[in-house]
Amino acid sequence: MEVVVPFAAETPKTRLGDVLTSSERSTFARAMLADVLAAIDETGHEPTVLSTATLPFEDELASVPPSASVAVDTRSLTDAVDARLPDEGDDPVAVVMADLALATPDALEALFATDADVAIAPGRGGGTNALVVDHPEFRVDYHGMSYLDHRAIAREAGASLAAVDSFRLGTDVDEPEDLVEVLVHGTGRSPARLREFGFRLADESGRVGVVRDGESTLES
Amino acid sequence: MEVVVPFAAETPKTRLGDVLTSSERSTFARAMLADVLAAIDETGHEPTVLSTATLPFEDELASVPPSASVAVDTRSLTDAVDARLPDEGDDPVAVVMADLALATPDALEALFATDADVAIAPGRGGGTNALVVDHPEFRVDYHGMSYLDHRAIAREAGASLAAVDSFRLGTDVDEPEDLVEVLVHGTGRSPARLREFGFRLADESGRVGVVRDGESTLES
Repeated sequence: MEVVVPFAAETPKTRLGDVLTSSERSTFARAMLADVLAAIDETGHEPTVLSTATLPFEDELASVPPSASVAVDTRSLTDAVDARLPDEGDDPVAVVMADLALATPDALEALFATDADVAIAPGRGGGTNALVVDHPEFRVDYHGMSYLDHRAIAREAGASLAAVDSFRLGTDVDEPEDLVEVLVHGTGRSPARLREFGFRLADESGRVGVVRDGESTLES
Repeated sequence: MEVVVPFAAETPKTRLGDVLTSSERSTFARAMLADVLAAIDETGHEPTVLSTATLPFEDELASVPPSASVAVDTRSLTDAVDARLPDEGDDPVAVVMADLALATPDALEALFATDADVAIAPGRGGGTNALVVDHPEFRVDYHGMSYLDHRAIAREAGASLAAVDSFRLGTDVDEPEDLVEVLVHGTGRSPARLREFGFRLADESGRVGVVRDGESTLES
């Protein structure tokens, strides 16, 4: 099964702009990508990074498994992914977002093992964090409420549908408060980079937040 | 296995105070409790509501399954739950939070089926949303980073430990933005009540939010 990992190479993680510099965001986004690629590789599948720009395999990405390859597609996320989905008779294709910093081989295998024509791991806020497509009529639409839209598209295509219930796959790292999850549950390069940047867990008012060295708590 | 469901009967869901009146919060909290009890009942286990006050089984709770019982304990959450945990030779005890509005029998069964001495379903922000305890030395501590604390307590007790990876069990409904998850993924009384209160999904700037009739978007 081909596993496609879309990656916005040029303007990564803008919603982390309040807590990370542009350079840090780029480093952190690549660290998360490297973690996702390593987890996919451990499942025995070969990841293809679907990048908006050429991607030098250095720094964070020097460690990506040799099974990984890169394809550049400057179109929108929806159009670029659609072009990769299977036609009649093709093998199933999986799409895994590059910011699933908590993804583990076990969590991914539960998704990849689906018997359904379309399997979706939802993210918070109605997003689609990962999916497997084994139906020629299914197409993606990442604008807006993609989880509900993808369910509707699958129904209209007559495709059987499964939702994959995973906290790890359900956690995409977009907002400052998501950094807590990386520090609590992450195990790879992503939490290591956050710690190098000075982030650590803070415990305030009953909910865990993150704090950066020399600054007050960002989230609680 | 006894399944304990702690419930703060008197001051429910204060962090929803910006979007729900006190009366609505009380109704919604009881609707979530009823949904959680129904899901537990469907797994074949008998839930015990561990409530901070007596709980009339009317209104939202008129539908709770006959397997459910109520025990009143006015102590802190930690102390009240601790008093219910198993001693040597006792059956395992599960603790499931009353605001897991997305909990399904399947998600709960994956937790209850654990072989570990202590199994934890983490919530966002380092919380402990559900756990199963089958070890006489384990005790809870719900203050602060309870997920990491509970892992440390299990290790110190020499108990084997499992983390249960579930988006549904990982979603506790505390904040206005959590209402989106109830409307997208919920199936019981909780989403029905929110819709009666006038909430519906709104689709803005690429992430799903909720909007209340006659008001602007609460979260996006």
